[in-house]
Amino acid sequence: MINIINEWEFKLSAYLYALTVIGFDNHTIASKDGADYRNERISFLSGEYYNVLTDENIYKTLVELNKDNSLNKKDKRKVKLYLKIFKDAKALTKEEYVEYDKLTLKANDVWENARETSDYKAFEPYLIKLFEFSKYIAKKRNSNVSAYDLFLDDYEEGMNIDKYDEFFNLIKERISPLVKEVNNKQDLVNTNVLNGIYNLDKQIKFNKHIMKYLGFEDSWSYSSVSVHPFTTSISKNDIRITTRYKEDDILYSLFSTIHEVGHGMFEHQLSDEIEGTIFSRVVTSGIHESQSRLFENYLGRNISFWKYNYPILQKEFDFLKNVTLDDFVRSINASKPSFIRTEADELTYPLHILVRYEIEKGVFDGSIPLDNLNEVWNSKMKEYLGVDVPNDSYGILQDVHWSGGSFGYFPAYALGSAYAAQIFNAMEKELDVDNLLETNNFNEINKWLKDKVHNDGALLTPKEILIKATNEEFNPMYYIEYLEDKYKKLYEIK
Amino acid sequence: MINIINEWEFKLSAYLYALTVIGFDNHTIASKDGADYRNERISFLSGEYYNVLTDENIYKTLVELNKDNSLNKKDKRKVKLYLKIFKDAKALTKEEYVEYDKLTLKANDVWENARETSDYKAFEPYLIKLFEFSKYIAKKRNSNVSAYDLFLDDYEEGMNIDKYDEFFNLIKERISPLVKEVNNKQDLVNTNVLNGIYNLDKQIKFNKHIMKYLGFEDSWSYSSVSVHPFTTSISKNDIRITTRYKEDDILYSLFSTIHEVGHGMFEHQLSDEIEGTIFSRVVTSGIHESQSRLFENYLGRNISFWKYNYPILQKEFDFLKNVTLDDFVRSINASKPSFIRTEADELTYPLHILVRYEIEKGVFDGSIPLDNLNEVWNSKMKEYLGVDVPNDSYGILQDVHWSGGSFGYFPAYALGSAYAAQIFNAMEKELDVDNLLETNNFNEINKWLKDKVHNDGALLTPKEILIKATNEEFNPMYYIEYLEDKYKKLYEIK
Repeated sequence: MINIINEWEFKLSAYLYALTVIGFDNHTIASKDGADYRNERISFLSGEYYNVLTDENIYKTLVELNKDNSLNKKDKRKVKLYLKIFKDAKALTKEEYVEYDKLTLKANDVWENARETSDYKAFEPYLIKLFEFSKYIAKKRNSNVSAYDLFLDDYEEGMNIDKYDEFFNLIKERISPLVKEVNNKQDLVNTNVLNGIYNLDKQIKFNKHIMKYLGFEDSWSYSSVSVHPFTTSISKNDIRITTRYKEDDILYSLFSTIHEVGHGMFEHQLSDEIEGTIFSRVVTSGIHESQSRLFENYLGRNISFWKYNYPILQKEFDFLKNVTLDDFVRSINASKPSFIRTEADELTYPLHILVRYEIEKGVFDGSIPLDNLNEVWNSKMKEYLGVDVPNDSYGILQDVHWSGGSFGYFPAYALGSAYAAQIFNAMEKELDVDNLLETNNFNEINKWLKDKVHNDGALLTPKEILIKATNEEFNPMYYIEYLEDKYKKLYEIK
Repeated sequence: MINIINEWEFKLSAYLYALTVIGFDNHTIASKDGADYRNERISFLSGEYYNVLTDENIYKTLVELNKDNSLNKKDKRKVKLYLKIFKDAKALTKEEYVEYDKLTLKANDVWENARETSDYKAFEPYLIKLFEFSKYIAKKRNSNVSAYDLFLDDYEEGMNIDKYDEFFNLIKERISPLVKEVNNKQDLVNTNVLNGIYNLDKQIKFNKHIMKYLGFEDSWSYSSVSVHPFTTSISKNDIRITTRYKEDDILYSLFSTIHEVGHGMFEHQLSDEIEGTIFSRVVTSGIHESQSRLFENYLGRNISFWKYNYPILQKEFDFLKNVTLDDFVRSINASKPSFIRTEADELTYPLHILVRYEIEKGVFDGSIPLDNLNEVWNSKMKEYLGVDVPNDSYGILQDVHWSGGSFGYFPAYALGSAYAAQIFNAMEKELDVDNLLETNNFNEINKWLKDKVHNDGALLTPKEILIKATNEEFNPMYYIEYLEDKYKKLYEIK
């Protein structure tokens, strides 16, 4: 009977392949004027996919299989993961789904304009409706757990408020004060040394070099340009990443490339066995982000990484000849409180997430009223980062996620960075990472990651992956200590 | 009842949209190593499309509608075009289709290797089988007309052996002798003046300029690079063309770009009303090629075109400063017999097609035996073009078409050039083409073409389009006289 599920899964993967290629095409190549024609057909094709996904006969087969004790572990998990999708899909009536879809589409439109004009009052009624609708959905889906617990688990299997509270309390108590101390010692790291005009063709060339260094091979990948960088996996051997370029900022494209390669390498190193199955599709946000953050921060901002690569960068850009390796590495690790999450440095980043986490949690448990959330936002930014938000475009309106009803997603971003610290720590025990980075042997790091993290995809839970890679469950102290050690040293704090 | 057909047609257009994007992606971006994964899913999606296309209930509806005299002209033609597809699809059993598909796939593989090694004997048994299978298919589809008549009509509605004979006899009697005369006077046009290294970035820039000049706008188009240039229409407002570059040959990319823009402009200028319908999909090969050839040869090799554009080209490539406009235009119009059709100039091109036409016709009527067709090829090349084919890679093995069983396709290529002559003649009566080209007013030409040729797509037959555009049926004399006038003048022949 599991064969019925496997055949149906192949069918799903074919529709997903089409929709993924179409999505990539839309974000990189497709013409402006052709949008209406495409969108009408994408809606239809998404509907066809949804019809296949929610096939009632498949549901019955899954229910039967769920009672079958002879299934192996892998098939058991497959049945479980699909049954969750069915169960959630059946929680609302078709009319309710349509209503919710319409609400998110409208809210997204309104948000786009509100952000441009910094007009929170225009967006506020939609944000309120989205929170309320989400509470309703949560109740319909599972009234045994709190709404926010449910959504946190959606994005990171196994997580809940208790576990996140423990994590974010550490961020609040130990990282927030450190950020303020660092801010008082800005003189110690001079980022101006990197100021200059970086020819775009040379930037592209250097990005290509870095991809090659990271083991991102032409025969199974493609890189391109888009406004917002992203990674698309067509299949494990067809991985596409995008970046964007600024002429006066080499770091802007470079670290986005390294970040996306981290995501891409994960997808490429999934085992052949799970290609095209649900295990290749539902890797949690936290685990996925752990790999991009590992590449970007733990490896990409490492001095050993640049011992090999900085001379190559200097050859491309003459004016860097006067900047020492040390000064370069200090610059790329500088920290300073700012308003925009996506531009935040490694140290201040989790505080941006803390703000969002506390608001989401407070709204769902009723301790924060829905009115004037922008003011709540601003006061928390002041409290944790010490900054005065100048207007709502730089505050509550900055991110797209809430306009699409994605509550519970943000915490997984911070969690990913913390997972990465723990995984990096384990990696260093088994590999001479510095030596591998310095000697252009990144493939040894990829091999370790394939074995410990990438290979199984969602066949394992986040908890199981962490235990496999690090021999213990999630422990936020690796992250806290990593940040403290690094930034106290850099900013000469005792 | 026509609404059922229209809804079904929308569904078809959605699947075709997905398959077209996937096809474009495969030819431009998709990774080498991901081919197997993609191909398995493309097969499945093509099957889904085929199932929708051959829906038995739709067939019944079409049969009913075909009896309905109250249908308007447009709906009548739609029913007729779809019924033809159904009728042809029903001619063979499913097993026979699978067998034929396998044969063409295998034949294509064998051909690729045979071409590389110039080994006609390896390919010969497959070519023979393909001809024989095609005869069988033709008999099953319609035993009232000859096989070749049937295939000629497939690619160019309304054409048959009698009409092509009339056309190709003129090519044989008037163009073949002219080619030989021109070949004796090669000294008169010195193409060496264009020798040089053309920086690729500058070539790309100049190609972009030409696209803009031709009215090919960014908001509804995209251009890229691929080994074999092609045009893909996602919809009328999402047109993609590709080209390829050679550093020592500016003409190589340039005229391929102008050619593909001709195809692309046709697709872009289809009326909104027929977007996504069969009328946008089954424009005949000859009519489509007439537009690419019109752009490439009648407009793109015109001295007025270059009066505006040559100074811009000279600015990009310093060494052209010593080449006069006159010498440049003479060079790009030079003619010399050669072996490869796709690299043939305007004058020798139809003779390459004549060779293929006579072989196809002779095989289907039995007057040419199937053995040693390579020798037939070589003797015809000698007779019509005066060249000695050095080996079969430069002879019968050069084109991919026959390996896919596409018989009857080639003649439409030559026909397109001839249509273009007739259309160009009509255009010149109504527009001051030279002035428009010289003054950067190409959009007036596009407007005329939209009105006369592009707007209706396959809503009209080729015959109807020609009458609409030129007030007369196809008349090959425009082409013959255009070639004679042009080349007698260029090569000083009386």
